[in-house]
Amino acid sequence: MQKTINSIRIDDKDIEQMTRLYRINLINALSGYKSANLIGTQDKNGNHNLAVFSSVTHFGSNPAILGFVTRPLSVTRNTHDNIRETGHYTINHIPEHLIAKAHQSSAKYPKEVSEFEVLDVEHWYSPNLQAPYIKGAVIQMGMEFLEEYNIKANDTVLVLGKIKELWLHQPDLLHEDGWLDLNAAKTVSISGLDTYHLPKQLDRFAYARPNQEIKSIQ
Amino acid sequence: MQKTINSIRIDDKDIEQMTRLYRINLINALSGYKSANLIGTQDKNGNHNLAVFSSVTHFGSNPAILGFVTRPLSVTRNTHDNIRETGHYTINHIPEHLIAKAHQSSAKYPKEVSEFEVLDVEHWYSPNLQAPYIKGAVIQMGMEFLEEYNIKANDTVLVLGKIKELWLHQPDLLHEDGWLDLNAAKTVSISGLDTYHLPKQLDRFAYARPNQEIKSIQ
Repeated sequence: MQKTINSIRIDDKDIEQMTRLYRINLINALSGYKSANLIGTQDKNGNHNLAVFSSVTHFGSNPAILGFVTRPLSVTRNTHDNIRETGHYTINHIPEHLIAKAHQSSAKYPKEVSEFEVLDVEHWYSPNLQAPYIKGAVIQMGMEFLEEYNIKANDTVLVLGKIKELWLHQPDLLHEDGWLDLNAAKTVSISGLDTYHLPKQLDRFAYARPNQEIKSIQ
Repeated sequence: MQKTINSIRIDDKDIEQMTRLYRINLINALSGYKSANLIGTQDKNGNHNLAVFSSVTHFGSNPAILGFVTRPLSVTRNTHDNIRETGHYTINHIPEHLIAKAHQSSAKYPKEVSEFEVLDVEHWYSPNLQAPYIKGAVIQMGMEFLEEYNIKANDTVLVLGKIKELWLHQPDLLHEDGWLDLNAAKTVSISGLDTYHLPKQLDRFAYARPNQEIKSIQ
């Protein structure tokens, strides 16, 4: 680690030599602000699972595809196992009032324990999906498993799913042009391992074209 | 699309039937808040490229791996081509004061045009990397290409790289336990295609364990 008055430089050797906790705190912050979602699943016997994920990522709009990253041998195994058993899962944006419960869902509960019960989070079912939605989430999606990729570099798994249905429980979020107001839904974002933030809109810009100055839309 | 007073339900058939612009506005917002980064590259002749990406995702801490999603035949082709030519790229957190220029970098400039010049963004080089860093970004990483995955579902490409070096140009961002203060760096986040937000910290929680109440750290 090289420090000057104005800058710190850390290289890959420094990263290797960090203590585990220092390293996971730092490296988890480097992708920037992360999406904050609760993924709801159940196994073939109907046992529920609820877990926080900060890696849900947009992969495409047509078809509508979201991905997330999981480690098959870690705490998140229940989510992955359940998705492979039923083919279904729900992705629920975490609203401000649920951040403490969402974070607690990252504790390593045994498979037979339902995080819904332990955390006192209510759930509901849509007729089309073998996975529980959480009550109190404003934006939530029913997902169908599509495919997964084993990442050679570190043995993580990228899970891709297609949006089968979308629920918006605050109809004013959806604007005329399809734009969705995440500020109004009080959706939060995560940095690092454990820090929750409420974003506030700075600006919305028009489609960018060469030789044309950038314009605000709203 | 089914509407009640309290809810809207949209299914996969509704999504297929949307106009393209409505669909990309809506679906791009559904993963939640996204990371906001500028990726800097150059080709083997030293021509620069700068492009905004909202898909940079944490894949692992040891080794430190970040991924991002690109479409080989779209506007982002220059970034991908350059990474495959040199093996290097920079990831720069977008700070609040650069959001208009960052968004303008998404315009489809020809390959021979440097977005650095058109957008009047200054750059600098580290001795260890064949890719330009942007001046004015507080948190920036020099990346080495690791591997890529072709996503069958929609022909996108997941590009994975390893952090070779990390620069923090505001030394007070880095706390004693490795925690990084993204609020103090004024790093922004993106929702949808075109909306930029400044997140504000709500809470930081201790490591979650079963049978133990969740606690705030700071």
